[in-house]
Amino acid sequence: MSVTAAQGFRAQGIAAGIKPSGRRDLAIIVNDGPSDAVAAVFTSNRFPAAPVLWSRQVITDGSARAVIVNSGGANACTGPQGFADSHTMAERTAAALQAGGRDIGAGDVLVCSTGLIGELLPMDLVNAGIDTVVVDVGAPGAADDPSSGSMSGDGSSMAGQSAAQAIMTTDTVPKTAVREGDGYVVGGMAKGAGMLAPGLATMLVFITTDADVPAAALDAALRHATSVSFDRIDSDGCMSTNDAVIVMASGSAEMAPDIDEFTTVLTDLCVDLAQQLIADAEGASKDIAITVHEAASESDALEAGRTIARSNLLKCAIHGEDPNWGRVLSALGTTTAAFESDHVDVAINGVTVCRGGGVGDPREGVDMSQRDVVIDVHLKAGTSTVTVWTNDLTADYVHENSAYST
Amino acid sequence: MSVTAAQGFRAQGIAAGIKPSGRRDLAIIVNDGPSDAVAAVFTSNRFPAAPVLWSRQVITDGSARAVIVNSGGANACTGPQGFADSHTMAERTAAALQAGGRDIGAGDVLVCSTGLIGELLPMDLVNAGIDTVVVDVGAPGAADDPSSGSMSGDGSSMAGQSAAQAIMTTDTVPKTAVREGDGYVVGGMAKGAGMLAPGLATMLVFITTDADVPAAALDAALRHATSVSFDRIDSDGCMSTNDAVIVMASGSAEMAPDIDEFTTVLTDLCVDLAQQLIADAEGASKDIAITVHEAASESDALEAGRTIARSNLLKCAIHGEDPNWGRVLSALGTTTAAFESDHVDVAINGVTVCRGGGVGDPREGVDMSQRDVVIDVHLKAGTSTVTVWTNDLTADYVHENSAYST
Repeated sequence: MSVTAAQGFRAQGIAAGIKPSGRRDLAIIVNDGPSDAVAAVFTSNRFPAAPVLWSRQVITDGSARAVIVNSGGANACTGPQGFADSHTMAERTAAALQAGGRDIGAGDVLVCSTGLIGELLPMDLVNAGIDTVVVDVGAPGAADDPSSGSMSGDGSSMAGQSAAQAIMTTDTVPKTAVREGDGYVVGGMAKGAGMLAPGLATMLVFITTDADVPAAALDAALRHATSVSFDRIDSDGCMSTNDAVIVMASGSAEMAPDIDEFTTVLTDLCVDLAQQLIADAEGASKDIAITVHEAASESDALEAGRTIARSNLLKCAIHGEDPNWGRVLSALGTTTAAFESDHVDVAINGVTVCRGGGVGDPREGVDMSQRDVVIDVHLKAGTSTVTVWTNDLTADYVHENSAYST
Repeated sequence: MSVTAAQGFRAQGIAAGIKPSGRRDLAIIVNDGPSDAVAAVFTSNRFPAAPVLWSRQVITDGSARAVIVNSGGANACTGPQGFADSHTMAERTAAALQAGGRDIGAGDVLVCSTGLIGELLPMDLVNAGIDTVVVDVGAPGAADDPSSGSMSGDGSSMAGQSAAQAIMTTDTVPKTAVREGDGYVVGGMAKGAGMLAPGLATMLVFITTDADVPAAALDAALRHATSVSFDRIDSDGCMSTNDAVIVMASGSAEMAPDIDEFTTVLTDLCVDLAQQLIADAEGASKDIAITVHEAASESDALEAGRTIARSNLLKCAIHGEDPNWGRVLSALGTTTAAFESDHVDVAINGVTVCRGGGVGDPREGVDMSQRDVVIDVHLKAGTSTVTVWTNDLTADYVHENSAYST
């Protein structure tokens, strides 16, 4: 279902030939309203890709009617020509939708790209693909009319799945999630398997809802949701140039939700998608949840959790099913979080292998055979708790990333 | 030659049975004076190992007469018993040297340990080993008297090599270096193959000189030398709990050098040892020198260089001989260094693959077949230049570190 679960949205994904593999590589999401409220958070990388620069402009008025997304090329570090290409993608998408009867301009179209940095997109293929995907996405409301017999796109679940496939790069599975709120639906799709690190997102995520939520409230809800979901996954400590998390509200359910309840539902969906990203991280064989307890502040807990999550040595140890708590402490010891070194406890999969900063229960008692690994760190310095999700470091990660661009 | 190249020093390394492999695992360095000046820098990790805590105390008066070093166990995160064990090692060493006629107390003995974190040392083996290594290190001046016929230790080159072997953990080769100053000699040995990251040292380094340099000047010279050598290598971004760089001056050459000239010689030696560490980093197949040019400040250049050096994605790309400059920029883009994103140039092995933050010369022109890889980043924001050394990320690194403690 993904982005087509909520009423008022159509989506589609096609193979435009951008990827040499011939797989799906171009997706569209159309918001048929009545509302066109949108909110987004983008990468904080200082080399934002051309589509990020474009979409930041589009988002400023809090409204957008469509998103066009390509995989097979990030259009990052591509200079003025790259920005012109993102602009062209928006123009072409708007023109094609106008031809289908929508009142829409380039300034209503968000653009996202993902793939290799530093190469221009094959714009002939991209432009032809945009024309095709706009045709394939069908007419507004087609999904609500099964008698149309169309399987080609629009709001059908098959179309949502096609769109989720079209944004994949090194992902091995599409990631989608749906939540039902009180009288409305929130659905989303995500991609991202490498270059996953907070600050903010480091992935592409598209979320739709048929709730009626104004742009400002949507923005606040999204910022809360991402801060405790996508901002707390860290696959490899590398921040992308192209990250974006976009939420669009069609208002089609004619339901203005309680904003706190909506934020809770949205957050739950974001956590689900974030964990799907980590579970499919490049080469990973273990999913690791690091919870820092009893921290003096949330920022302390987050710094400690992230730093531990970025230790290559710890990630290798987990890969080897070695409950090497010394590598947890040696990472923690580089942070500025408040703690006394002889007060810290560390439990791995429930066994307190480190107690008071020293040797705890025997590490032989830790069962590391499952894919999920749970690390609990107790700082004994306060009451804040934060969980950060990461994965192990494997030879497959090395292989995949030493061969990616060649 | 290593630490026995300078007059006034004896050294030895033996197999005390601490390592299950039966390899050398216990080393001693004795300074026979006349000066006992010493300076040291230790890890800034907030979980400093017991021997670091001990040695920090010893160093406070600027004098020390011996260093006892074991591999096969880090004695880190071992609580009060671990500290008592470091104290015992110093006591035992002093007592054994006293039995050989030296006037020395535990407060004159520095202690260093390296190996797995979180396990107590086998003190019966360590104590017996200390007695043996003190015998084997021979009597003062034996090295200066070839007619003694002794091959058992003291200041001979064989003994210096044995000591360098005894401090190895995952190192594949011992690291030693010697420099001749104006009327004096500086020699050193180092270990470290993983957990290499600045802040400060993340390795064990022992340096001796027969120059007559007071402790305060020695300290200043050492801090300068480490700041531009060991502080600028970053193998895996992981900071050890046991790092120490120690320099001892015997004054035996009866030469008080110009301190600037001495600092230059010491720095040159430290850069040599630092590069030997990186060249033997765990699993590495490429040595990477990242130079950040035209930075607004030295700290900007250092931050940029370190951040690029820590990108797992870049390190994988280099392993795959892929001049993936997009991964240089995506790492640089997470820093706070001053630069305009459309002004940055990146050259890999002399080919400017990125110009003005965008596509430069064809990446196909880059020859990546050699072990040495040179990355030059031009920020166009000032006049500061810093080089940081790192290595690639390989499947061998993953393998070595997923099996290390088991």
